[in-house]
Amino acid sequence: MALIVHKYGGTSMGSIERIKNVAKRVAKWHRAGHQVVVVPSAMSGETNRLLGLANEISETPDPRELDMLASTGEQASSALLAIALQTIGIESKSFTGWQVPIKTDDAYTKARIRSIDADRIKRELNQGKVVVVTGFQGVDEDNNITTLGRGGSDTSAVAIAAAIKADECLIFTDVDGVYTTDPRIVPEAKRLNVISFEEMLEMASLGSKVLQIRSVEFAGKYHVPLRVLSSLTDPDLPIEVEKHSGTLITYEENSQMEAAVVSGIAFSRDEAKITLLAIPDKPGIAFGIIGPIADANIDIDMIIQNQSVNGTTDFSFTVSKADFNRAVQVIKEEVAPKIGAKDVFVEQQVCKVSIVGIGMKSHAGVASRMFATLANENINIEMVSTSEIKTSVLIEDKYMELAVRALHKAFELDKEPENTGIN
Amino acid sequence: MALIVHKYGGTSMGSIERIKNVAKRVAKWHRAGHQVVVVPSAMSGETNRLLGLANEISETPDPRELDMLASTGEQASSALLAIALQTIGIESKSFTGWQVPIKTDDAYTKARIRSIDADRIKRELNQGKVVVVTGFQGVDEDNNITTLGRGGSDTSAVAIAAAIKADECLIFTDVDGVYTTDPRIVPEAKRLNVISFEEMLEMASLGSKVLQIRSVEFAGKYHVPLRVLSSLTDPDLPIEVEKHSGTLITYEENSQMEAAVVSGIAFSRDEAKITLLAIPDKPGIAFGIIGPIADANIDIDMIIQNQSVNGTTDFSFTVSKADFNRAVQVIKEEVAPKIGAKDVFVEQQVCKVSIVGIGMKSHAGVASRMFATLANENINIEMVSTSEIKTSVLIEDKYMELAVRALHKAFELDKEPENTGIN
Repeated sequence: MALIVHKYGGTSMGSIERIKNVAKRVAKWHRAGHQVVVVPSAMSGETNRLLGLANEISETPDPRELDMLASTGEQASSALLAIALQTIGIESKSFTGWQVPIKTDDAYTKARIRSIDADRIKRELNQGKVVVVTGFQGVDEDNNITTLGRGGSDTSAVAIAAAIKADECLIFTDVDGVYTTDPRIVPEAKRLNVISFEEMLEMASLGSKVLQIRSVEFAGKYHVPLRVLSSLTDPDLPIEVEKHSGTLITYEENSQMEAAVVSGIAFSRDEAKITLLAIPDKPGIAFGIIGPIADANIDIDMIIQNQSVNGTTDFSFTVSKADFNRAVQVIKEEVAPKIGAKDVFVEQQVCKVSIVGIGMKSHAGVASRMFATLANENINIEMVSTSEIKTSVLIEDKYMELAVRALHKAFELDKEPENTGIN
Repeated sequence: MALIVHKYGGTSMGSIERIKNVAKRVAKWHRAGHQVVVVPSAMSGETNRLLGLANEISETPDPRELDMLASTGEQASSALLAIALQTIGIESKSFTGWQVPIKTDDAYTKARIRSIDADRIKRELNQGKVVVVTGFQGVDEDNNITTLGRGGSDTSAVAIAAAIKADECLIFTDVDGVYTTDPRIVPEAKRLNVISFEEMLEMASLGSKVLQIRSVEFAGKYHVPLRVLSSLTDPDLPIEVEKHSGTLITYEENSQMEAAVVSGIAFSRDEAKITLLAIPDKPGIAFGIIGPIADANIDIDMIIQNQSVNGTTDFSFTVSKADFNRAVQVIKEEVAPKIGAKDVFVEQQVCKVSIVGIGMKSHAGVASRMFATLANENINIEMVSTSEIKTSVLIEDKYMELAVRALHKAFELDKEPENTGIN
């Protein structure tokens, strides 16, 4: 018998028929002798409907009230799931974030979990019940309802799994796992049987939409084995098959991971580049540029400072497209006149493509194979940034698909893995 | 400056446009210097939508989960109202039942309020905020969400008004007050400027749908002055006009009330009659009939036992149409064979018509005028039941409109009141 957390996304909870299917799947695990906690999202479309109502009233609705409003979606879907479970003979009770309680800070609409009280969940599990806990929400110190931001139900599920010391957290979703890259761009993309947290973090932050990035951080921090798998299969799929399906995200490095140099290709179109030309190369200049940007609450992604020539250098960085106009304003009005930049050059038609793999740590030549592959396709690299387990390049965005496909092939990600990992 | 509770029904909250109108009306009271607590219902249709989803899953969904589900409607509408108030410059915060908290028993779907903590509401009011509190819901001792049953938001509003010692509780609704009878049946029906709690209680329990009956009980018990008025008027209606509009329900008897012998005509089609014929007339026989009915959780309305003849008597009672089949089953299978009833006679084509008036206490001849009026119309009376402030008759339901109109005229309710009461 294991203690398992199931998480179901909005699509999986998208209709009464689908909620009944979720109940069947959960019942199967419960009847096999497992203790199960289920964390459902709101029915698909519901959160948007609620926020849409708020936006009809105000363009800038109060975040506290937005959380009060949006949290009702998960409360309703959780109650419906508990009813669906009871209807097929499984004892079940649903709980909101405040009832558990899941304590958070008071950063409404993007709160962070501080603590989870496992007592009530444990008590109900020990009475043989399936416990349903609303995803996405918690409660601050002053008993105000908070939400964790879009995709927050993933984080709720992982945090609950950590709090109750679950054996595994299963994220049921409308894809059947984590792929080497987006199959819409590379049809040969392969599902990974296993991926490390570090790699998943890079894949997630680089644009793979499978999991909310904070849930992966949480799982890594608290060593929660996490599995992404499909909720669209037959709910009566034998448990022995289901428990080995999808992609396992693990903190244990194993032989298969070491074998694979590159696990996947991630990409993001959400990049825009700003370059300050011919600035004086002296101490403090980088802070003089990045400081005002950070003060304006703009996140910076890649940063590059070139070798200086004749006492001046060029300085480039990228921001998300949503922050681009504000960043350009800060640079042109505040920074450039102050530090004496000769000119400011901006570009929005760029994208970032990254190769990710824990095996890169110990393998030389990975970056050079990446650069050679792109050179073969005549794709110019505008910026490069590296970490221990990824190498990212900024290129013209019209080349994105071509670059992803070429890299996917060059690193042989279209071949079947040699073994199926710890499955 | 007064401390006022406003309650708005589902129709008044039925769209974003209407919520904005509610905000305007509340803002007007706030700007006039009053402290205002607002208790909104769910947007019209929302509670039915939610319960409909549950019924798609199960014919008998778990009451605890139903409350978890249904309570989201008020939580959402309260947040939307707070946003609407903020948008027009009024500081506002919304609270759920558990946040206040409003403590109830654990009778899910029909819980009763035990206590309300006024501290948080008072604190926010004293900071100059309009406080929005979800209607319809509370929380039991074990922190489970409960609801107060259909129309429960009226009770929430009155209970909150009692807890914070409000000067008045204004129930804004889609009718403009309490009428001498239903204007759809008697176009000459007049709005009452003032009515006593006792009369209102009879009017409400006899089928006037204006207020949930428990809210009137609560208001009477805690001496909360209650006013029913329209939410469909111009929200910018001058406060001096609005505060004297609608119908005041009061515990203070005044001259106008004593002047009016009969305040209104109530009626209910929700009656069905069961008669046991020729039962032995001996002690304990009434309990032998009514006991098993009460054990089956069926509420009884009218009860009549005739004069016995030759040691046997007939015994009649009425139940609501929803309970009729179950009641007949209990009587035919359990009761009749045991007590030796000769036959059981049932009738569903009946209705109850009542005259209500606190003035009846001290006026003889009221019942006889009622009977004479019905006799003039050739309407046969099947049962009669009386209390200090009402007389009810059970008649064939096809005569209901005729009886109501005739009685309305006979008691001169279509005439203008002599004064406008305490307004």
